[in-house]
Amino acid sequence: MKCLILAAGQGSRLQQKGEVKPLIPLLGIPLIERVIRSAHHAGADDFLVVTGYQSEKLKPFITQLGERLNIPITCIHNEEWEQENGLSVLKARDFLQEPFLLLMADHVFDPEWVRILLRHPLKEGEVVLCVDQDIHNPLIDMEDVTRVKMESDRIQAIGKGLADYNAFDTGIFLCTPGIFPALEESARKHNDTTLSGAGRVLAAAGRFHAVPVTGRFWMDVDSPAAFKKAAQGLLGQLRNKATDGPVSRYLNRPLSIRISGMLVHTPVTPNQISFVSFLLSLLAAGFFAYGGYLFLVTGGLLAQFASVIDGCDGEVARLKFQQSDYGGWFDAVLDRYADAFLLFGLTWHAYEAQPEGFILLTGFMAIIGSFMLSYTADKYDHLMHQKIGTGSPFRLGRDVRVFLILLGALFNQALLTLAVIAVVMNGETLRRVIICRDNG
Amino acid sequence: MKCLILAAGQGSRLQQKGEVKPLIPLLGIPLIERVIRSAHHAGADDFLVVTGYQSEKLKPFITQLGERLNIPITCIHNEEWEQENGLSVLKARDFLQEPFLLLMADHVFDPEWVRILLRHPLKEGEVVLCVDQDIHNPLIDMEDVTRVKMESDRIQAIGKGLADYNAFDTGIFLCTPGIFPALEESARKHNDTTLSGAGRVLAAAGRFHAVPVTGRFWMDVDSPAAFKKAAQGLLGQLRNKATDGPVSRYLNRPLSIRISGMLVHTPVTPNQISFVSFLLSLLAAGFFAYGGYLFLVTGGLLAQFASVIDGCDGEVARLKFQQSDYGGWFDAVLDRYADAFLLFGLTWHAYEAQPEGFILLTGFMAIIGSFMLSYTADKYDHLMHQKIGTGSPFRLGRDVRVFLILLGALFNQALLTLAVIAVVMNGETLRRVIICRDNG
Repeated sequence: MKCLILAAGQGSRLQQKGEVKPLIPLLGIPLIERVIRSAHHAGADDFLVVTGYQSEKLKPFITQLGERLNIPITCIHNEEWEQENGLSVLKARDFLQEPFLLLMADHVFDPEWVRILLRHPLKEGEVVLCVDQDIHNPLIDMEDVTRVKMESDRIQAIGKGLADYNAFDTGIFLCTPGIFPALEESARKHNDTTLSGAGRVLAAAGRFHAVPVTGRFWMDVDSPAAFKKAAQGLLGQLRNKATDGPVSRYLNRPLSIRISGMLVHTPVTPNQISFVSFLLSLLAAGFFAYGGYLFLVTGGLLAQFASVIDGCDGEVARLKFQQSDYGGWFDAVLDRYADAFLLFGLTWHAYEAQPEGFILLTGFMAIIGSFMLSYTADKYDHLMHQKIGTGSPFRLGRDVRVFLILLGALFNQALLTLAVIAVVMNGETLRRVIICRDNG
Repeated sequence: MKCLILAAGQGSRLQQKGEVKPLIPLLGIPLIERVIRSAHHAGADDFLVVTGYQSEKLKPFITQLGERLNIPITCIHNEEWEQENGLSVLKARDFLQEPFLLLMADHVFDPEWVRILLRHPLKEGEVVLCVDQDIHNPLIDMEDVTRVKMESDRIQAIGKGLADYNAFDTGIFLCTPGIFPALEESARKHNDTTLSGAGRVLAAAGRFHAVPVTGRFWMDVDSPAAFKKAAQGLLGQLRNKATDGPVSRYLNRPLSIRISGMLVHTPVTPNQISFVSFLLSLLAAGFFAYGGYLFLVTGGLLAQFASVIDGCDGEVARLKFQQSDYGGWFDAVLDRYADAFLLFGLTWHAYEAQPEGFILLTGFMAIIGSFMLSYTADKYDHLMHQKIGTGSPFRLGRDVRVFLILLGALFNQALLTLAVIAVVMNGETLRRVIICRDNG
């Protein structure tokens, strides 16, 4: 699937003049790179970028980006970049004989928008536009947004000044080459060279459809304030991870997102973050084993902090398009070691205070229970996914385990914590074995 | 894919007259059930069984079998069962308008034969026969076997008395309805109503092909001696499990196969075997923890015995067609608990003898290392499979771990054993992490 990106405009509402808007980094990644990588992630594999304003700065970056990501990207220069954006689309006409994606260089969006759009059936001559039906969306600049009036999936009217509207134009289009004659007709008949003008021509012919994708993040990044909002919006997206347990959701995630927001501006990689979190857990385990309430509490806090940092690797990976299977697996392996060391440190702590064999046995059962919970997770999650669907059930995971350890440390109850973890984790493993047997 | 099975003959070479050969159990499963389940396993899903001799005994069993396995099975009666087997094929003509599998009720075979055969391209009017090119195969009754002369993939001649031959007829056919006119022509022209007669007609027309599948088990079970050989052959197949480690291959497997050969005659299920093996390991761990050399040695032998029994669950499952995803997973979960308990018992033993903290740490590292080896196995095996192919690399697994424990017990070296397991298992985990990183 080809993807046309409009990057010719000046972006005049940005304060610092002379800056090239598509090159301004948002959470560490230049806007144009973010758009290209999002679309690539969603399935586009051949890119055309129409440049204009300061193209001498933009072109070298895009060429280099294509080489770095190993994606074909062609630049097309539009000398008339000071005119309306429809002209930029027409410049790419010769390259586009098949349906194609059409995106704006300064719109940030969840790749899922594009994925949903690409699944939409497309008849000859039609254009489909992703629209946001949340007309109270706080991320939208009401002065600048293009409004849409739709009825069922047909777009009836489109324009900035529309008084009667029920959705917003997100700037994410799926086009057939039918868009080109529509642009020409709009220019010829109405002297209107905007994309919206072509949209009105298509709407009048019943060939302009809307795909509503409400509730997912998108933004037109058009001002310094919008940049800040967009950064917050992208970070906010990270909150909704389906597999997050309760402690992750309400305690770790809000903290880790702030830290990730800083880490994206550094060259630190997700795997390095995983490793640092592991080292912090080791240190915490050492504090536990050293003995004494002060070290126990410090260790507990450190373990919880390591658990927060443990969320950052995935967040930074998502924000910087550095997700990998290996990264997730490496993190999981280190987490298993970290869990075991924390519980062993705690066992040692409890045993030093009271050298009884049953304490070793309790600690051992806590370690094995924690491990078995992770060991059985894949099979169990897969089964739950098949039986119950995509809904996320309550998940007893690492976040709860580490939080129990923190509580145990704060209340100086190492043995009780081990006993609770041993009973809960092994009990849950047994429950999973039975559920898998009955539903296998 | 439909499957026609010939079960009309008397099987007169079996000693006990009056017995219905297809109903005689081989390793706990009647011959006809074994053939039907093997073919079903390989992809056949609609069965026709031609009965004749003692069909009043055979039919009720087959009807019940279809219900039990939830597979459509139709019985067709051949009153002329005392004549040659080609007539039985003709009786099924009305049911078979598409290509179909043709099998003998008294031939036992590795389902892989059928799977390979079903992938063979088939032109109109052709018949394809699986042949065994191992003309010194000791499982073959040279007096009774049908011989084949082939050149490249064409069958030139077929018959029992053939002097010049280079393969054997396994009785596993993939037929088009073109076999029916060939049977009729053979009867009309040569007064020969055998399947081989039709084969000669097809061979003369260049429409009889051979698929050699050498090295895999098959047998014509035609005498009490052949029954014994077939049982041994089926058991022998279990030796070649690709994922077996060295201790499994040379010590555990030869023993477990003998035990499985007895267990198949009982109603014991594979999951019950897994659970008994787990209980034996728990008992062994208790012996370790109890202390003293005598209990250590007894525990070590018991652990090794449990490891042998741990091979029987999969073997019995394969022999009795009771394999299931859940069974394999349940076994793996119990194995992880068993490993952990054995190592904890050993740690306790060593610590009782010498109550030093580093012994607890060593034991802990052995437990976590063993866990991690299992935890990383899926990812690593998957990667190795992709990179290196289906070849089985040396596998450091449970068999080696338990054997090390046995050695440690015999030589009264609990601590050394723990240290070796800790170093080797964690070292191997680290190696896997690096390999997965470099090849991810």
